[in-house]
Amino acid sequence: MAVELQHLTKRSENYSQWYNDLVLKADLAEQSAVRGCMVIKPYGYAIWEKMQHQLDKMFKETGVQNAYFPLLIPKSFLSREAEHVEGFAKECAVVTHHRLMNDPNGGGVVVDPEARLEEELIIRPTSETIIWNTYKNWITSYRDLPILVNQWANVMRWEMRTRLFLRTAEFLWQEGHCAHATAEESEARTVEMINLYADFAEKYMAMPVIKGVKTANERFAGAVNTYTIEAMMQDGKALQSGTSHNLGQNFAKAFDVTFVNKDNKPEYVWANSWGVSTRLMGALIMTHSDDNGLVLPPNLAPIQVVIVPIYKNEEQRNAVTEKVHPIVNALRAKGISVKYDDADNRRPGFKFADYELKGVPVRLAIGARDLENGTVEVMRRDTLQKEIDQLDTIVDRIPALLEEIQENIFQKALKQREEMTVKVDTWEEFTQAIEKGGFILAPWDGTTETEERIKELTKATIRCIPLGQPDEPGVDMLTGKPSPRRVLFARSY
Amino acid sequence: MAVELQHLTKRSENYSQWYNDLVLKADLAEQSAVRGCMVIKPYGYAIWEKMQHQLDKMFKETGVQNAYFPLLIPKSFLSREAEHVEGFAKECAVVTHHRLMNDPNGGGVVVDPEARLEEELIIRPTSETIIWNTYKNWITSYRDLPILVNQWANVMRWEMRTRLFLRTAEFLWQEGHCAHATAEESEARTVEMINLYADFAEKYMAMPVIKGVKTANERFAGAVNTYTIEAMMQDGKALQSGTSHNLGQNFAKAFDVTFVNKDNKPEYVWANSWGVSTRLMGALIMTHSDDNGLVLPPNLAPIQVVIVPIYKNEEQRNAVTEKVHPIVNALRAKGISVKYDDADNRRPGFKFADYELKGVPVRLAIGARDLENGTVEVMRRDTLQKEIDQLDTIVDRIPALLEEIQENIFQKALKQREEMTVKVDTWEEFTQAIEKGGFILAPWDGTTETEERIKELTKATIRCIPLGQPDEPGVDMLTGKPSPRRVLFARSY
Repeated sequence: MAVELQHLTKRSENYSQWYNDLVLKADLAEQSAVRGCMVIKPYGYAIWEKMQHQLDKMFKETGVQNAYFPLLIPKSFLSREAEHVEGFAKECAVVTHHRLMNDPNGGGVVVDPEARLEEELIIRPTSETIIWNTYKNWITSYRDLPILVNQWANVMRWEMRTRLFLRTAEFLWQEGHCAHATAEESEARTVEMINLYADFAEKYMAMPVIKGVKTANERFAGAVNTYTIEAMMQDGKALQSGTSHNLGQNFAKAFDVTFVNKDNKPEYVWANSWGVSTRLMGALIMTHSDDNGLVLPPNLAPIQVVIVPIYKNEEQRNAVTEKVHPIVNALRAKGISVKYDDADNRRPGFKFADYELKGVPVRLAIGARDLENGTVEVMRRDTLQKEIDQLDTIVDRIPALLEEIQENIFQKALKQREEMTVKVDTWEEFTQAIEKGGFILAPWDGTTETEERIKELTKATIRCIPLGQPDEPGVDMLTGKPSPRRVLFARSY
Repeated sequence: MAVELQHLTKRSENYSQWYNDLVLKADLAEQSAVRGCMVIKPYGYAIWEKMQHQLDKMFKETGVQNAYFPLLIPKSFLSREAEHVEGFAKECAVVTHHRLMNDPNGGGVVVDPEARLEEELIIRPTSETIIWNTYKNWITSYRDLPILVNQWANVMRWEMRTRLFLRTAEFLWQEGHCAHATAEESEARTVEMINLYADFAEKYMAMPVIKGVKTANERFAGAVNTYTIEAMMQDGKALQSGTSHNLGQNFAKAFDVTFVNKDNKPEYVWANSWGVSTRLMGALIMTHSDDNGLVLPPNLAPIQVVIVPIYKNEEQRNAVTEKVHPIVNALRAKGISVKYDDADNRRPGFKFADYELKGVPVRLAIGARDLENGTVEVMRRDTLQKEIDQLDTIVDRIPALLEEIQENIFQKALKQREEMTVKVDTWEEFTQAIEKGGFILAPWDGTTETEERIKELTKATIRCIPLGQPDEPGVDMLTGKPSPRRVLFARSY
């Protein structure tokens, strides 16, 4: 279906509606016939693929290998780890039968009541249980460790309220599951992966993030400690963008996975797991895009440069095409993804608007006049500014321009975050700040009770206890009890 | 767990056991705790990834884009296309509930009877139905066509008898789903994709295949025509390795997907679908491997060259390492995947056997004597032959050697297939030939009745009506009725 370049809701009018409009109109994803499950359309999937390829490369550089574990998990596995069952064994898709049959009353196909499974199977909401049940057979001695394995997979959580990319019943993700011989090594890997995610977010997504530790209350179910990266969206809300969990020996104990250590003694294996998902697509969209549409960082844009010819007749079109051809080849030789759009059934103005909507970082327009003058019009998507460049140096200009754009949108997002981050010390300041939106660094007495009371009163949660923050003794805003350092509060997605 | 280099069952003793042993001992895959579902281990997955990357590149070169559609399909969708429902709506995983709860009697978690779905959902056995239901909203005019979309996904068919890679309840695959404005264009794409699969099989897997058309009886459920590539395994059985289906307008009619054609008239859209799966892993293993283990084609080997140092002391090891370092770098600069295995906890003999088992195409061994002589021992996995080469030219030798191995294993497989393919004209010849194993080209009267009778009597099926075979009038072996040309019979996986 041809893209309909209708009015996109403005962010200032209705941020949430702007997001939904944009996801649909930029052809990124749409709702499917199955409640809460999305279809990721080719353009959206191309961005996700770019994320995958980069992350996969970064994982492998740290020694991680990919593998694949079953989609279905025996129901009993979920109950093995006491906290995990509370977190994951509730809203999930349950397979109870393995056969359909023709309805004896002629009503199409029905479930065959004879084909009931002895034990129900759950579509994985996450794979710790099935993987640790597998690792049991892979690990005997410290020589078998570490195991550094990742899988790219679909998972399912029966969410009640869903939003494209941000919260869907089925989503795509990667989940790394490492097994180590020592607590220290496992903790080091847990931290290594949150650092990797932060690097990816900042260098590829151009999205500044705050690294920190989750409070006990917000921890992954079954983890000893959860690290997170938190990004700020343009409406000031936080979006948890990646997590890395130190699982201690919890899953090893639940699945009885021991190894003989260097001292020849049996010991439970140390574990961590870490993941990012198609939620990153939502984060990417909401960090940079504007009222004209998507703004993509050049490092993740499926099309980095689009070239649109301007012509009045076939002869002019051919002249432009002839001139553009070597430019396209030279840019591709530099590893730049270029599209030359000389389609005859859409006017240039329509193409311009469409590529703006799709967030293509650089647009070149070349007409008959340009050929005479040896010039080209260059528009950068991030600032929407145009410049006239020389045709014979444009190939050298583009890589630098893409870098400039990448850096500019990062700095812009960083500036916004800094402007929307405040330190407060009193409850009055806090309640005012939270209504304005943004991140709030405030003291906290360290109790779940206070954390939950703040959430009830303001809908703000503790996003994390930021890493590398200096100790800063203070008093809790609500209870007056001592607070060792500030923590990061925000409303969140 | 350290690889145990136990005895691998010989192919001549028990081919089926040899295959199972090999899959487990080469660390490719294993059974999981969920009936019929496998765990693909890192080494096996690395081979599958190489297949994926190459296929994905080839698909994209023909204009295909990736996308992602839901895992779950509403039960009613499967019934829409009359033949499709017969083929796919029977043995499948059925999701009936969306919540678990704590057992009020304290027995862990149980299915919450209140959380029954209004309509059951099926884990996709293939995605034609959900995809055509989606395409309905994407297609209005001939300008929206063609749609050339592929997805990499997991699918599930509740198979009764499973074997690792060859037939598993859950498997990984890609499924392409194209929509076209004309029957001719759709047929051309269907053929293009079976040709692409054949190219991939022959050039990358080094596996010769026969391209052909399936009989009506063996067609995909819902297809007008199914193209297949059939490979011969070392035991003479056929393995269907990839299929491409011309679906005519069947799914467009079932899901009411019409477009306005160039004559401004509404018309049903023309469809095709095509796929290969992790079954190719089974094909790859069974085509080339021997009683020592895997034999991998260099084009798909995760490790193409392994270098093993031979040393008596630390000083010798360091001397070898120093010499090997620039060789490793030079090979990597040529895009060759190299592993230098100087691990101290395994003897060279153990390493040699392990890399043979794993099918690494080329093994270099370098000892103190070699350093003195400027030599290196080169073993090629396909022939197990050793040669002594000069250290200072080995970097130039390797790419040619890898090509030789790639070509040699293809030719070896081709020769075997040719030796095990016979033409027969009488029933007596046929029944003798089928007991020997291999491919049989024989006349057939074109009826499903005869085809099924032959299958009952001999377990042989018509693998395909080969493309490009000359017409060769004859008479059916069983019925004596006229046969326009020979068809390909074999027993199969």
